[in-house]
Amino acid sequence: MLKLRRVPVDTRSENVAFVSEACTLTRVEGLRALAKIEVHGGRRRILATVNVVEADGGCALVEPDELGLSIEAFARLGLPEGTDVHIEFAGPPRSLEAVRRKIEGRVLGDDQYRAIIDDIAAHRYSRMELAAFLVAAAGFMTSEEVLGLTRAMVEAGNRLTWPYPIVVDKHCIGGIPGNRTTMITVPIVAAHGLPMPKTSSRAITSPSGTADTMEVLARVDLTLDEMRAVVEAERGCLVWGGHMNLSPADDILISVERPLGIDTQEQMVASILSKKAAAGSTHLLIDIPMGPSAKVRSHEEATRLRKMFEYVGDALGLVIDVMTTDGRAPIGRGIGPVLEARDVMAVLRGDADAPADLRAKALAVAGRVLEFDGGVRGGGGEARARELLESGAALARMEAIMAAQGPAPAAVEPGSLVKEVPAAADGTVAAIDCARINGIARLAGCPFDKGAGLDLFRKPGDAVRKGEPLYRIHACRPADFAFATAAAEEADGYVIA
Amino acid sequence: MLKLRRVPVDTRSENVAFVSEACTLTRVEGLRALAKIEVHGGRRRILATVNVVEADGGCALVEPDELGLSIEAFARLGLPEGTDVHIEFAGPPRSLEAVRRKIEGRVLGDDQYRAIIDDIAAHRYSRMELAAFLVAAAGFMTSEEVLGLTRAMVEAGNRLTWPYPIVVDKHCIGGIPGNRTTMITVPIVAAHGLPMPKTSSRAITSPSGTADTMEVLARVDLTLDEMRAVVEAERGCLVWGGHMNLSPADDILISVERPLGIDTQEQMVASILSKKAAAGSTHLLIDIPMGPSAKVRSHEEATRLRKMFEYVGDALGLVIDVMTTDGRAPIGRGIGPVLEARDVMAVLRGDADAPADLRAKALAVAGRVLEFDGGVRGGGGEARARELLESGAALARMEAIMAAQGPAPAAVEPGSLVKEVPAAADGTVAAIDCARINGIARLAGCPFDKGAGLDLFRKPGDAVRKGEPLYRIHACRPADFAFATAAAEEADGYVIA
Repeated sequence: MLKLRRVPVDTRSENVAFVSEACTLTRVEGLRALAKIEVHGGRRRILATVNVVEADGGCALVEPDELGLSIEAFARLGLPEGTDVHIEFAGPPRSLEAVRRKIEGRVLGDDQYRAIIDDIAAHRYSRMELAAFLVAAAGFMTSEEVLGLTRAMVEAGNRLTWPYPIVVDKHCIGGIPGNRTTMITVPIVAAHGLPMPKTSSRAITSPSGTADTMEVLARVDLTLDEMRAVVEAERGCLVWGGHMNLSPADDILISVERPLGIDTQEQMVASILSKKAAAGSTHLLIDIPMGPSAKVRSHEEATRLRKMFEYVGDALGLVIDVMTTDGRAPIGRGIGPVLEARDVMAVLRGDADAPADLRAKALAVAGRVLEFDGGVRGGGGEARARELLESGAALARMEAIMAAQGPAPAAVEPGSLVKEVPAAADGTVAAIDCARINGIARLAGCPFDKGAGLDLFRKPGDAVRKGEPLYRIHACRPADFAFATAAAEEADGYVIA
Repeated sequence: MLKLRRVPVDTRSENVAFVSEACTLTRVEGLRALAKIEVHGGRRRILATVNVVEADGGCALVEPDELGLSIEAFARLGLPEGTDVHIEFAGPPRSLEAVRRKIEGRVLGDDQYRAIIDDIAAHRYSRMELAAFLVAAAGFMTSEEVLGLTRAMVEAGNRLTWPYPIVVDKHCIGGIPGNRTTMITVPIVAAHGLPMPKTSSRAITSPSGTADTMEVLARVDLTLDEMRAVVEAERGCLVWGGHMNLSPADDILISVERPLGIDTQEQMVASILSKKAAAGSTHLLIDIPMGPSAKVRSHEEATRLRKMFEYVGDALGLVIDVMTTDGRAPIGRGIGPVLEARDVMAVLRGDADAPADLRAKALAVAGRVLEFDGGVRGGGGEARARELLESGAALARMEAIMAAQGPAPAAVEPGSLVKEVPAAADGTVAAIDCARINGIARLAGCPFDKGAGLDLFRKPGDAVRKGEPLYRIHACRPADFAFATAAAEEADGYVIA
């Protein structure tokens, strides 16, 4: 039995236990660094990886009768300092046996996926073990396995329920800079009266997530009860999903998928549909942008993905509508939270210079979502969406949602370090490389600096003369500014023909 | 620029950098916990994972102008405390791009394997990234890929050269308790005059490795120069390979393969042949024990494995001979370092009660190795081996090798906590489960306690009466003794029919 101590070291999601080398666990029982232990006090328990602290190290991080936990681990265990805690040597999680079967190329059953996902959601997997599962599953998964995985992911977290017969949602698989249609669709749909309680993520690999851009306009880190109140009053919301504990295993899997660059269709379907089913949606529109630098690059890929969404969605009782959209270039003008928020509000206000492509795409998306309402005529959704946008009803609803969610944490302006990137030749913009534009915007400081980003002046089809600006880089810090401008000089992402 | 400081925390092979949250890197440049950085001072550099230390944490692990490194990381960088070090944000290793291609199911070329293995040997891969590579490669590898991987592994470390035209070696793929034929084969072959500079590993998942058992009789952690002197004088040695830096990427890969339980034939061939080629062997006998609880369970598997050894061995210029042996039961009586060393010396001395199966298998193995000598008649190896054993020449050579290597670090006796495990019924021993016997011996304290282990009294074919002892458990610590006896009570590993 050891006394619990908070060790002021941030190791984020990796639970680290600090044990003195003079402790009986290390001296007598042979506990070594990198071993896994289970720490429990009363009914609380967590798994942690051991770091051993030298006894004569001068700095008494932990005494021989203490067990130290890193900041997040201490918070996760949730017991006060000085509590007596027990330690058990922990083997690998039991479900790792099923992962080994997957590595051998077997098809896993629902029970095996449930065991794996429950262990992952309970933080029992190391990043090494998560990588093993993800890479093995990336080898191949049957449609039934994708369904089994998705179900397990839904069941491992909270499930929201709503007092409405229809709860609509939309999701874009991403990859296209700008493309902030969600923030225009939600107020249109809510103004129509259809409930659309939207939870979004922050950016992981993109310059901005919907939650990051919305945070320029309003508070987004609402509790579940606060979110319910907003939806009750306004029929819609635009909040960050991080507090809702929806499909918690998904967040953990993503933290390994991203650095490894694993991005299979199977894992995308399980990730998206588990979050939506857990959020209590009944009807879901999925937007698949297709283009040479988008995530989906061919009609064959788009069709395969659509069928997988339909198969799993049907089995979960979700009504799924899939639209394939033009993913050949960024949508809108601004890339990055502040610049995107500016575009969104311009469209909602009906400004003359609002980006036409963003407006058109948002109307198409909102129209498809509105058609989930049995009272809207087939093919009549887009006209209804336009009506709600042009009448000012959508803008009024957006302002009501912003007011209900509360003020943004800080007022932010576009970054003051600016540089215009000139066209290298006369001609017409033939293409814009979405991946490159995203990369330059991230280098400029997105999404951490909300004012950082790109402001695009030319889109595909536009004529341009050599030396005229293609876009403006905004940054807030000199180092980021230097990185972003250097990257744009190396390759600006525009093809002029 | 920060000042280097040694932080007295043992994180073993995981390089951890401790940075104060008040440091400019974290405050201004946005460095966060779990980020990867490259630390360099002069021409030394290492990669490390960041832990952020709270500035007001009371314990000044690091000051805001310091960079702390965990114990092994500090030693690996090899610079004194107070040295000015530079920090660069490090992306993932470049060769991870090739790992992504493997995850997608592609065939990789030699250059890609070289890039991956060089990065791994330079400690640039996290355990998460190592797992991704191993699991992706476990999906499938062509024979050419196994060769490319093996070559890259050889090139990433030291290569020994010997002043002899023939340098022989043997390797057993393992899995069979006891089976200490190497320690009998080396003195026989060396007594014949054929150079056999044997480097062995310590146990990873087994109760004892050859290096662990030899360490009961002599010192095994020789430097390369010390090893050369022993081989020069005695034509053979039995040392631990850990100091030789042979195929260093292999040791790193094994540290992830074992906990994940990845054990493909492809990775086994690359692991074994890279170590042997790096050790300067020219002729190699591979022993593949086959049986229902061994690593290889069918003739088909054994044949596939043999062909892969032959393909890669031929391409590396190694002469390979593969023998498939009986892997249905433990070989010898003792399981665990001290008990196995006792059996080995009994065979070498020609004791009347020496285990006959260990003696017979060692003669068969030594005979096959001796036939690598052109002067030994085909089929005459085993007779020559018996002659050297029965004449006492092998025992004399073993004693000379032990003397040349130096005395064992400690004299150890069999563990004093003993329990005899009784037969559950009258009958004949039909089978012994090798995996179960290994597991009970590990629980008893092997290989950490050299005196721990099992002493088998009955082998397959032996008659036994209910209540007669099947084997005796030896342990050194009460907790281990309790675990091992409980496991034996649950399932003793014997099938009596």
